[in-house]
Amino acid sequence: MSVTIKDIAKVANVSYATVSRALSNHPEVSDKTKKRIQDLAKAMGYTPNAIARGLVTKNTHTIGLIIPDITNPFFPEVAQGIEDCANRNGYQVFLCNSNWQLNKEKEYLKALYEKRVEGIVIGPVSNDVSHLLDTVNKNVPLVFAAYKPQIEECNYVATDDYKSAVIAMEYLIKLGHRKIAFIGGQHKVRLNGYIDILQKYNIPVMPSYIKYGQFKQESGYQMAKELLIENEIPTAILAGNDIIALGVIQAIEEFGLSVPNNISVVGFDDISFAALDKIQLTTVFQPKYKIGELCVEILLDKIKNPDNHKFVHKILEPKLIIRKTCKGISI
Amino acid sequence: MSVTIKDIAKVANVSYATVSRALSNHPEVSDKTKKRIQDLAKAMGYTPNAIARGLVTKNTHTIGLIIPDITNPFFPEVAQGIEDCANRNGYQVFLCNSNWQLNKEKEYLKALYEKRVEGIVIGPVSNDVSHLLDTVNKNVPLVFAAYKPQIEECNYVATDDYKSAVIAMEYLIKLGHRKIAFIGGQHKVRLNGYIDILQKYNIPVMPSYIKYGQFKQESGYQMAKELLIENEIPTAILAGNDIIALGVIQAIEEFGLSVPNNISVVGFDDISFAALDKIQLTTVFQPKYKIGELCVEILLDKIKNPDNHKFVHKILEPKLIIRKTCKGISI
Repeated sequence: MSVTIKDIAKVANVSYATVSRALSNHPEVSDKTKKRIQDLAKAMGYTPNAIARGLVTKNTHTIGLIIPDITNPFFPEVAQGIEDCANRNGYQVFLCNSNWQLNKEKEYLKALYEKRVEGIVIGPVSNDVSHLLDTVNKNVPLVFAAYKPQIEECNYVATDDYKSAVIAMEYLIKLGHRKIAFIGGQHKVRLNGYIDILQKYNIPVMPSYIKYGQFKQESGYQMAKELLIENEIPTAILAGNDIIALGVIQAIEEFGLSVPNNISVVGFDDISFAALDKIQLTTVFQPKYKIGELCVEILLDKIKNPDNHKFVHKILEPKLIIRKTCKGISI
Repeated sequence: MSVTIKDIAKVANVSYATVSRALSNHPEVSDKTKKRIQDLAKAMGYTPNAIARGLVTKNTHTIGLIIPDITNPFFPEVAQGIEDCANRNGYQVFLCNSNWQLNKEKEYLKALYEKRVEGIVIGPVSNDVSHLLDTVNKNVPLVFAAYKPQIEECNYVATDDYKSAVIAMEYLIKLGHRKIAFIGGQHKVRLNGYIDILQKYNIPVMPSYIKYGQFKQESGYQMAKELLIENEIPTAILAGNDIIALGVIQAIEEFGLSVPNNISVVGFDDISFAALDKIQLTTVFQPKYKIGELCVEILLDKIKNPDNHKFVHKILEPKLIIRKTCKGISI
């Protein structure tokens, strides 16, 4: 087990507080004692403990990041922006994977507080974010990444998800599609865009054409299979994100149909794999790396200016990336 | 800023040590004092600090994980196994992304010590692992994930990388390939398998057919482009991992050739995207999730039995997954 301040205090026959102060170069400890304690600590193999130091300096130079799914390349791409921006500013990032589980999100949040991170960036697992907003009371700034909460008393950086769905739908409508299904994940903002555009063009909203599961490839695959079995075949499917879209395409092809000849597919996010020659997924781009960078910039500003309680909201523009999974049809 | 033990000590007019002991339920503090301090701590909004508690109990129930590239799906798949196994055992995981940079690996290692994690799992950035082995002296157990160091005085869980290269090469040779190039990343064990099999079949090893860069898609793409421009076109390319393979395929197709008609491609890892209908990458499977689970099992055993200094080595079997990026040629 590691050598602790307590162990050193015992050997040096001084109080815990004296060791702690000596190691943090506190002015009330004499230089002689400081040297004795510091030499002893070194001899005993003591690792300067950022947290114990944090108790004194309140400065751990660490940021906590909680993402809901490390295996969806979208989040690692956001995390890379967070990592790079934090590092440029002398901060380290501890990443936690909540795995789309609310209890894990809560536990990791607690653990990050306890590790005295100076700020937290989070991609939440659900719209239930009340436990997250409590960070304000704990004086640990928090920024939502790639997510716009329903309340405004918080910091967030998000792509305009509603608009993303609108531009994808307008594109499909322009191509002549009317039988458009929707296969989504945990968050539902994009669904609103889907429904509004159908209504704008007087296309009936069919509940059987709307499926909701997880933001997982496997989930997209299963829901698409169900959708194709239960319904009249749609001419287009709007998928909740790119990995759902990949699952949807897999299901369509196993069903004996082809993309885009029989069914057009649009995703969201533009993960790096979407651009592969073999995939060429038409999708709505989110500025993932930029979202990560902006989250850290806001967080560092909050850390440096704890008395500025103004919340920062950044909504970034989505962009339709037309590749090869959509095709026009005659109306 | 957060309320610290020091703040409470000041208000309560007792020493730092007394507060620390009262909050950790130390037997030397009277029940009356304990109650007074604990009530005060609660009233002041103090968050029980796992690290400060760790100084007393030495038990933070956290594991540190350092991976070299969060954007390569291989590592998130290993991380998922680590996360799930740790969680089942009541442990949380703090993940750090070293980004293939040795200095970042060192800094994160230091930060994890300081956060008092009970053990560390690491996918190292290079063969220079001496700084990592020092954890033994610090009494923090460490396990290498998906990597076999050159020395045996450490714990590791790895797929047999040499054998992986051998089975991939034997497969290409059996298909009739003789002009086989190699495009690799930072670690070089697979290169040895490549060279040995060429020699076994009396095929000259051509230095211009061997390229080394990073374990990145972009790197695979660039190296393949150079290789195709500078050399007689090979009939097969063994790629250092799946994301390099995806870059190689991209380069081949941009060069106006096709996979597998003109050039066969084999990868390593079997990341989830390799199985997509559109990709169908022939690759050598590594049991990624299993590697993660085993790393945690070994680590927990080391944590629970600190006096057992026997090192654990697990070498897992690779498996060739034949899909659609290789084709037989007439010899």
